[in-house]
Amino acid sequence: MIKKYYLLSPGPTPVPERALSAAAEPIFHHRTPEFSALFMEVTEGLKEVFGTKEDVYILTSSGTGAMETAVVNLLSPGDKVLTISGGKFGERWGNICKAYGVAYKEIALDPWGKDFSKEELEAELKAMPDCKAVFATLSETSSGAMFDIRGFGEAVAKTPAVLVVDGISGAGVTPCPMDDWKVDVFLSGSQKSFMIPPGLAYIALSQKAWALAANSKLPKFYFDLKKAKKNLADKTTPWTPGISLIVQQKHALDMIKKLGLEGLFAHHRVLADATRAGVKALGLELLAQRPGNVLTCCKVPAGIEGGKLVKTMQGKYMAYIAGGQEPYKGKIFRIAHLGYMGGFDIITALSALEMTLMDLGHKFEAGAGIKAAQAVLKENWQ
Amino acid sequence: MIKKYYLLSPGPTPVPERALSAAAEPIFHHRTPEFSALFMEVTEGLKEVFGTKEDVYILTSSGTGAMETAVVNLLSPGDKVLTISGGKFGERWGNICKAYGVAYKEIALDPWGKDFSKEELEAELKAMPDCKAVFATLSETSSGAMFDIRGFGEAVAKTPAVLVVDGISGAGVTPCPMDDWKVDVFLSGSQKSFMIPPGLAYIALSQKAWALAANSKLPKFYFDLKKAKKNLADKTTPWTPGISLIVQQKHALDMIKKLGLEGLFAHHRVLADATRAGVKALGLELLAQRPGNVLTCCKVPAGIEGGKLVKTMQGKYMAYIAGGQEPYKGKIFRIAHLGYMGGFDIITALSALEMTLMDLGHKFEAGAGIKAAQAVLKENWQ
Repeated sequence: MIKKYYLLSPGPTPVPERALSAAAEPIFHHRTPEFSALFMEVTEGLKEVFGTKEDVYILTSSGTGAMETAVVNLLSPGDKVLTISGGKFGERWGNICKAYGVAYKEIALDPWGKDFSKEELEAELKAMPDCKAVFATLSETSSGAMFDIRGFGEAVAKTPAVLVVDGISGAGVTPCPMDDWKVDVFLSGSQKSFMIPPGLAYIALSQKAWALAANSKLPKFYFDLKKAKKNLADKTTPWTPGISLIVQQKHALDMIKKLGLEGLFAHHRVLADATRAGVKALGLELLAQRPGNVLTCCKVPAGIEGGKLVKTMQGKYMAYIAGGQEPYKGKIFRIAHLGYMGGFDIITALSALEMTLMDLGHKFEAGAGIKAAQAVLKENWQ
Repeated sequence: MIKKYYLLSPGPTPVPERALSAAAEPIFHHRTPEFSALFMEVTEGLKEVFGTKEDVYILTSSGTGAMETAVVNLLSPGDKVLTISGGKFGERWGNICKAYGVAYKEIALDPWGKDFSKEELEAELKAMPDCKAVFATLSETSSGAMFDIRGFGEAVAKTPAVLVVDGISGAGVTPCPMDDWKVDVFLSGSQKSFMIPPGLAYIALSQKAWALAANSKLPKFYFDLKKAKKNLADKTTPWTPGISLIVQQKHALDMIKKLGLEGLFAHHRVLADATRAGVKALGLELLAQRPGNVLTCCKVPAGIEGGKLVKTMQGKYMAYIAGGQEPYKGKIFRIAHLGYMGGFDIITALSALEMTLMDLGHKFEAGAGIKAAQAVLKENWQ
């Protein structure tokens, strides 16, 4: 058979054809009125997805670059912060703080997928009255968990600290209106719900965050947001930006605008509900206590070798799901449903999963997963 | 008339059609054998252009990100360095050092375009025996000047310092074989002679530079080359890379490979010779004492308003040359001849320039510039 490739990973994600072909347009200069108009249009579109009146800055980097941007622009050496770490990406906040000499207390949630409540955060903040910032994650891509950012926002807003949220995989999938939920720094990456290839990252700061940034002493140059702010006033960027990616982002944002933000959230909710119904019908268990709509993270069933499951999905069926990371390697697998995905991509994912489980000798009712997912899709199709 | 756009700026530069259309291919995952094979092929191609046996690291950032990468990976707070600053980009070395608390002595060449000799560098190094690094520029994009990197390499190699060269606009245009010329850190950007859109930067370190990097104490995370090195051993990158740009780079490197590196240098030499012949025939004067083949930087003739010249070229003739930067705004203009440019692009540039000069009332023999350029092209065409 023709080996047809299905990208079902939590980033990179499939890109709409129109946004793909836009990258094939001839390059034009970034110091022109044409570029400035496009750039400001994209910036406005990003503000809508972020749910903010503040400016959103476009960085040419991966999402990790935006995480570093948050740390180095807000803090000074020796500052005390809290990091909420529910997996590989929550851990990254601590790793960046460590690299820059920021004193961080890591709230390491064990096992991955465990939830953390607003009340628990309030207690932590009470114990650290000089906390400058709380670093959290909207959707933890390594566990599939979603966090109560709205609750965190309420807790942090009562203190002098700022709330920084990694929305790399979560923004545009699940609601997180930055201004309403009192998120002080929100950031994301282009290759997730923004539906373009990797290479750009987005970040916005509240006025409370800008006030903290005004006194920040950590060294920075490429990621210096004061330079970005100064240049945005001139409708440009301090450094040559990823022009072709910004052109692509305009087209993907046009699609998002047409669908509407609520429509985009509803779309992802249906895909996630269908996926969850499918894997539950196969008797599989989710890792996350509070699963999000970005990806579905399942425990590998007893008696099955996790590495083999992922390898078969990817190698034999070309269904490129993701395996577990670090301590969870071989123990979980992750099916993403973000980016340019439709309902039938979920059917494909579950069908490939069922066939793989058959190959590995797992006992279950064949077709139960795709049937359950289809029922959810049918009910919600519009 | 149809307004046809001509990109004649020193970055971004025109991208070959085949490399453009490659960006429209569906996105695939960066943790796959398919990506690893492509990634290693691109890395090998970059090594050839860099003239090095060392690994070349692909960063998702602009060229400035690679400059910061050099500084933060080599140095420690309080280290003493020399920066050779012949314009806006040479100045940037000092600005990055300043941001990171590195003690730098800036050799500010005044006016821009002034040369700096190996012997002068030797004298500076003698006066600073504890110098850790010399930061230089192969082609200074703000002045059109080229520097004697071979001579600098000989001078620095005799000391414990390392030589760091910004080859952002120069690599692939003019020879700078990193290993042969004893360049310890060489870096470039994707949107120049590498003929793809902006968004990637490339950097390589000599063994002498790696030894210095081993003791570097400046903070770093996203740009940490130790992480990049560890990941390259696994044929991947630490962070999600600009996948579509790397795919494009493969196609552009295929073209470079076919032409050969010597062919690429010869091509740029012919374009630069033709441009220089053309502007000289118009009675224009170059800014650089030692002009390079990347771009031709001319002084605006007396009696002409520089801003108007650039505006007419760009607005009326859609020939997107660059104006002067900072103190040279309105005093110079810059015609680039790098990226995917052919001989007739030079004729176009000079024709637009002649028509602009006529519009502005400049007295000269009409057609003299294009005739002189054409003669050079004809003689060297192959």
